[in-house]
Order: sequence, then structure tokens, then C-alpha cells
Amino acid sequence: MPRPPDRRTLGELKAAVGDGSWLDSPADVAPYLSDFRRLYHGAAALVLLPRNVAEVAEILRICNRDEVAVVPHGGNTSYCGGATPDEAGTEVVLALRRLNRVRQIDAVDYSMVIEAGCTLAEAQAAARGAERLFPLSLGSEGTAQIGGNLSTNAGGTAVLRYGMMRDLVLGLEVVLADGRIFEGLKSLRKDNTGYDVKSLFVGAEGTLGVITAACLKLFPAAADTATALVGIGSPQDALDLLARLRTAAGDQVTSFELMPRLGVELTVQHVPGVADPLSQNTPWYLLIELTSPNPRQDLLTLLTATLEEAAARGTVVDAMLATSTAQAQAMWKLRESVPEAQRRHGASLKHDVSVPVSAIPKLIEQGAALVRRLAPEGDVISYGHAGDGNLHFNVSQRPGSEIKSFLARGPALELAMFDLVESLGGSISAEHGIGRLKAAEFARRADPVELSLMHALKRTLDPKGIMNPGKVLCVP
Amino acid sequence: MPRPPDRRTLGELKAAVGDGSWLDSPADVAPYLSDFRRLYHGAAALVLLPRNVAEVAEILRICNRDEVAVVPHGGNTSYCGGATPDEAGTEVVLALRRLNRVRQIDAVDYSMVIEAGCTLAEAQAAARGAERLFPLSLGSEGTAQIGGNLSTNAGGTAVLRYGMMRDLVLGLEVVLADGRIFEGLKSLRKDNTGYDVKSLFVGAEGTLGVITAACLKLFPAAADTATALVGIGSPQDALDLLARLRTAAGDQVTSFELMPRLGVELTVQHVPGVADPLSQNTPWYLLIELTSPNPRQDLLTLLTATLEEAAARGTVVDAMLATSTAQAQAMWKLRESVPEAQRRHGASLKHDVSVPVSAIPKLIEQGAALVRRLAPEGDVISYGHAGDGNLHFNVSQRPGSEIKSFLARGPALELAMFDLVESLGGSISAEHGIGRLKAAEFARRADPVELSLMHALKRTLDPKGIMNPGKVLCVP
Repeated sequence: MPRPPDRRTLGELKAAVGDGSWLDSPADVAPYLSDFRRLYHGAAALVLLPRNVAEVAEILRICNRDEVAVVPHGGNTSYCGGATPDEAGTEVVLALRRLNRVRQIDAVDYSMVIEAGCTLAEAQAAARGAERLFPLSLGSEGTAQIGGNLSTNAGGTAVLRYGMMRDLVLGLEVVLADGRIFEGLKSLRKDNTGYDVKSLFVGAEGTLGVITAACLKLFPAAADTATALVGIGSPQDALDLLARLRTAAGDQVTSFELMPRLGVELTVQHVPGVADPLSQNTPWYLLIELTSPNPRQDLLTLLTATLEEAAARGTVVDAMLATSTAQAQAMWKLRESVPEAQRRHGASLKHDVSVPVSAIPKLIEQGAALVRRLAPEGDVISYGHAGDGNLHFNVSQRPGSEIKSFLARGPALELAMFDLVESLGGSISAEHGIGRLKAAEFARRADPVELSLMHALKRTLDPKGIMNPGKVLCVP
Repeated sequence: MPRPPDRRTLGELKAAVGDGSWLDSPADVAPYLSDFRRLYHGAAALVLLPRNVAEVAEILRICNRDEVAVVPHGGNTSYCGGATPDEAGTEVVLALRRLNRVRQIDAVDYSMVIEAGCTLAEAQAAARGAERLFPLSLGSEGTAQIGGNLSTNAGGTAVLRYGMMRDLVLGLEVVLADGRIFEGLKSLRKDNTGYDVKSLFVGAEGTLGVITAACLKLFPAAADTATALVGIGSPQDALDLLARLRTAAGDQVTSFELMPRLGVELTVQHVPGVADPLSQNTPWYLLIELTSPNPRQDLLTLLTATLEEAAARGTVVDAMLATSTAQAQAMWKLRESVPEAQRRHGASLKHDVSVPVSAIPKLIEQGAALVRRLAPEGDVISYGHAGDGNLHFNVSQRPGSEIKSFLARGPALELAMFDLVESLGGSISAEHGIGRLKAAEFARRADPVELSLMHALKRTLDPKGIMNPGKVLCVP
């Protein structure tokens, strides 16, 4: 069990980074104490802003020796309180944002070595500068940092084609809980020398060590893109269209995003500059994007033909194909503004869940029935990455209803939603992680053998339990 | 340290599987005691042929209780002695071949649950039966089993497009060293609930537990394929062509295999039915394959145009495009017969190594210089998966030279080759694993922090050290 740091420990930690690289006044420390969703309000003994891996190693060496808890902190965009210290005021926040160099970029090897504190947008820009693509893409990419993307195994809107963050990693540099440095920044496509140690740290949410840099996979830049907003009648129609699109275009299907009518309506209503480009209202919408590095591919013709065939079969009701980048961007703005529209509309109950792709219609139908029964003041807005089986099954407070009684529905609805997801072979956290928010639920629902393996790994890699305590795993 | 099994233990193990499912006569046991390359000749106390996961669990429960070593055994195609018991005769061989059911195949979810004892060819056929593709492809696919492919993180000829075996896994069922069953057969594309436990077992070569089944990713079947045999002047020309192909066709470049002139010559000479389809001799050859699920893609035109552009620039000397499946198969037969041709030609010194893709020309040039100096009786045949930075840098005994003195060159050449690979940021085992063959070299060369993490993981998951001792990690 970690202990409060004494004056000597705090002094050594400050000396490890030097003046100008630590914060301890309440005003300076405040931005590090609340999460993005304002679910948690913690306290911290000290905030450290190291500039390089050696300083991170020294911090962990001291903290491990003195059994002081460390909370790694990136862009602070976690939806699960994963980067927020607890309320005791005895934890040290380790902010990675000053480790923000692109160390190396190699177009021939399609790889890039980048530090944890770079934002995802900076990583994307660095790849573009070398005429390459770093494909991870998500709403908070201007703020979220690579270290957080790695530690939460981030997903987003291009997973169908490129996979999650774990799939995009060739190598890692990690400072272990005891301050030793695991120097695994390989750029190899094939390396079968022993256990896959690096994958353990991806998705571990800073509970096994601190990722300080990564060697990431790059891809050929897209030279042909076809984007469409498609109106459909039901989630089952979405699956039919997905199957036909994948058969026609394979993994050139990069994004396949589902939205309900209400999501489109709220977004048009609440977010300036967003319009619904379709001429008729349909119950469901898809934002589909195909990409290829081959400029002569003519994906627009391929997508048009597939949508016309689907329309002839009755699967597609209406569709608009983007004929300019501006039109495509407007469609993406519609999709990416759904969370903001929900925020402006009122309170929300959120569930980031996944099921096998074929179970998406069941999840939507049975989930809606649960909301009618358990949160009748709410309207379902289930949207997201249908092509990956991942929906943000959210419930928006209906205008005029009472917020307190609506929010009070949360716990019972969440339990029922998680039961439903489990019954469909799904996951209670598709892409946002466990953090503090879902740690208890995860402990209750995880397979006991798998959970005991995770606790064993935690004890092995962080025997003193100093790394981000209370996140992912509940202390036994 | 494991101990010899006593009569009681052997009796319990036999009872766990029942009569007809164990072997202990020398004649019956013999096929399990030598590896494919005949490098090792071991002995075994007993060979067990369980039929289901419950029997595997009972075997491990008994062996763990009594501290008896277990050697998991699949198709026995390891190049590194990974599935062969040691010489003491105290180890128990656990053959997985009777766990050979395809449990489930789901075309909509693009996934398949298959048991460890199915051959890779059976897995491919099952996917084809559902109009899907399981893309792992390698020379021994008719014999190699899925459990071995998983345990060695197998590679092969389609890694450029689809990744290694680890990239193709959605979920695993594993019997742990103590007999508990990790039931992780999820078919989810996104699941961020805790640590990536399953990846630890992939590539662990049976030293952390026994994989009994896997949920594997499927892909759309290819409906358009373009295959070409291309004559080029140098490995650098190969890299130039690869870069242009990836820019033109992205990940539709499925295979990009390099062969030297001598490899083609020996294959035509030694393997019946193999011909060189090109009209002129060139120093190097590429077998290139593009695939797409879109039948209207016209990849042949795309490949032809790219090769013509390259010929105009002087990068491509000669090329033959397959205009029929038979022609494409003949090209693949040429490529896949290289190991057989080497075997028929004489003794070989083999190195399965990888470097960053951009370092392939240096590896070939500097490796050839090492062979001239350290194994002058040998001719270099460095061939393989150039698109992944993975070469089988092999040396064939020159006819008329003395085999003993040639083979005596092996250890010194291997050391120098591994030094070279290390200096280029590469790996001493790209896709064949460590097994017993490379365990000492790996221990000597691995990063000490990474190696200590691996030993810690081994102690955590297999505290009594019963799982495939002496493979991957040397006993400390």
C-alpha cells in the first residue's frame, strides 16, 4: 500500500526535475485534479513535469523506494477518470506533456518514434509531413496525447481498417515501476524473440509503468477518398450494407459510423454550422468512408454503385456522396458533434460498450427496451463505430424532465445494460478503458481466472502498488 | 525444477485421458522425439493425446502438482526444436492433434473459433467454406497446427498485408500451468477491459501455458489477384519498387518475396515441375502478389502499369505477369520450393533474421561479406519476406566441398550474422521463434531489463517451471 510522501521525498522529487518543472500551489495544481467529464475531483501532493525519460526514471525510482503513488497524466481526456488522483492528497501527478518530441520518422520503413507527450494531432501532422499516414483518429485528437492513446489502447473512427492503438505499435520505451527503463523502441515488422512484453503496457492505463515513447506504424497516405452520408431504415440494414461493402472494397472501408435520427436532429439543433444534408428523414444514418493510396482507384464510383445496388434492394433509403473535401468535412462534423450536442441538450447517461458485430441490432433493440423501463425520462442516442461492434449507447435527458431523478436512474440502467452486453458476449468497455469509473464493475464481472492473472501481473510489475492505484484493478 | 514422474503420476496421467489416448512404447513414442530439422533427439516418459480442454486441464493439474515437465506438441514443424522433449526422458509430451474441431464460424462477424490441433490448411479451408479468408500462409501449412502457429506467432508470405499470427487473434482459450482454464474466446473487435493477457501466450512457445483454442479474425475472400515474377538488379531496386507499389496499391500488396538468382537456379535444378518463366537471367527476383475482394479492381492493370513505370526507370529488368491461376501457382511453387531445393542440394547454415525494411540491402551486402570470410565453402541464398524486413539468410554447401568442415563454420558465422543483425537494429529470430536452438544466444543478447521482465512473467505464470523447460528462456 502506498504511503503519503514526507518532506524529504518531496524534496528529492523536486530536485529530480529541477525548478520550473514541478507545481505544488493549489492554483497551479488545480488543472490536474479533475477529469474531463468532471466526475472526480482529487488532490495531489505534487505535480511533476519531467522533460525526458531519465527524469521519469528518477521520479519512479524515488517513488518506488518510498512507496509513494504516481498518477500518469496526459491530455486529460479520459472518460473514466483514468488520469485523476484520488481525494487523499498523497499521490504525485506525473504529467508527460513536456516529453513531446518526434524523435525519428522513416518513410521507407513506414515508422515513427514519438514521445508520449505529443498530441495525437501532432503525431498525425508529423506523419503527413513525411507523406505518410498515422491512422488513429478520434474526437479529442487535438488534446489527447500519444501516451494516453497507448495507455488506453485508443480506438476511434478508423479501427475497422487500421485497428486499435495496440495494433499500431512496433515498439515501446517504458519506465517500470521501480525506475528501470525498458528500451523496446524497435521498428521491426517481425520479431519473435520471447514474450510480447510491450502489449502488456498498452491498455494498462499507467498501472504497470509509464510509457515514455513509442515506435508507431505508418501507412501510405490516402490519395483517393469517398465519403457518404446514408439514410437507412434499421441497424440490420447497416450490417447488410457493411457486409456488401467489405466484399466489394475489402479494407478500403475505413469508417462505418452509425447515428440515430435523434442524434442528427440534436446536432443540427445545438451545434452551429452543422446541417443535415439528406432530403428525407430516416430512422438511422451511416457515415461511410472509403480510402485508398491509389489515386486512380475511383472509390466514388465504387461506393456509388454499391449504394445504388443497396437502394434497389431497399436497404438504403437516401444517400449523399461528398463531391468535395468541404462536403466530406461537413459530414464528419455532423458525426463528431454528437457528443457536444448531447452535452448542450442536457444530462446524459453513457455506456461505451461492444458486442460481436452481428449482435448490434439486438443490442440496440434490447437496450432501448431497458431505457423505456428503467430511465423513462431519457431518449436513447446510440451511435458510434458499428463496423467494430462498438456503440456509445447513450441516453439523453428529455427536455422538461427533472435532472436529479434522471441521473438517479444511472446505476440501475448501467447494471442492466452491462448484463445485456454480457449476455450478447460483449464488453463493458469497448474503447474508453476501465479507469476508476468501471473498476468495481469490472472486478465483479471479469472471468475470475483472467482477473487473477491480471492481479498477478500487477504484483509482478508493480509489487509496491505505486502505479495509478485504484485504476483498472481494485486493490484486493 | 521439474522432477521425473513416478509410477503414480504416470498412472494418473494415463487415467486422465483414458486408454487409446496415451503412448509409452518406444516405437509409438518415437515420432514425438525428433524435430523437423533433426537437430534434436529427445526422450519422453509418456505421450498424451487428450481429446478436449478438460483433459488438458487435468493433465496440467497433475503435472503441476507433481512438478513434472510438459512439452506441448503440434505439427512438429518447428525450425528451432520448440516441440521436442529433452534427452532426460522425464518430460511428458502433450500432443494437441486430437483437439481438431472448428467450433464456430461466423461470416458476419468475420471470425472463427478453432481448436489448437487443426492444421493451418484446415483453418484456411474452413474459412473458404464460409466465403471468407484466413490469411496466414506458409510452406508447412498442411502439417503445422494452429496451436503451434499461435505459440510461435507464425509469419509467412502474407504478413505485409495481414500481420503475424498475433495480429489475427481475437481471443484465446488457454490451460494455465496449474490446470486452470483461461476462457478468453471473445470475438470482439474492441475490448478495453484490463491487460492484454492473451498476447502473452502468443509467441510464448508453450512456456506459459497450453493454448487449446482461438477465436481468429477472418477477412473478405480475394476476388481479384495479380501475381508477377519480376527480375531486378539489386535489393535496393526491390525497396524502390515496394515503396512505389505501396503508394499505388496500399495494403493490396499482399506478398513481396525476394529470391537470389542462385535460389531460382537450384530450385529449377532440384525440384521437379519448377521452371523459370523469365526470358533473361537477373541477379534478383521478386514474387509479387496483389489481392482485393473487389472483382472489378483490375489489379493486373495496376501491377502492369507500376512494373512498366519501374522498367522505364530501370528498376525492373524483366517481368512475367500471371494470366491464369496455373501460372500464378507455378510462380508460387518456384518460391516455396527454395527450402526443398536447398535440402536436396546439400547442407545448409540457416539464419531467420529481420531488420528494418530499409536495412535489407545492407544486411544482404554485409552478410555476404561475412560468408566469404567465415564460410568460404558456402553460397549465400538469402530469400524471403523482403516486404517485412525478414530474410532467411541461408548458406548452401557448395558441391564438392567437405560437409564436416562446412558445418563447422556454423557457430562462428551465426555469431557474426547475429552481431550484424543487432548492429542494424534487427532481430535474431524474425518468425521461427527461439525454441531450444536460440535460447542461449537470446539470453546473451537480449536487453537485460526486457529479459528480467520475461523471467518474472515466467515465474508468475509457471512458478514450478513445468511448461516446456529450456525453450525461449534458459533456466536461471
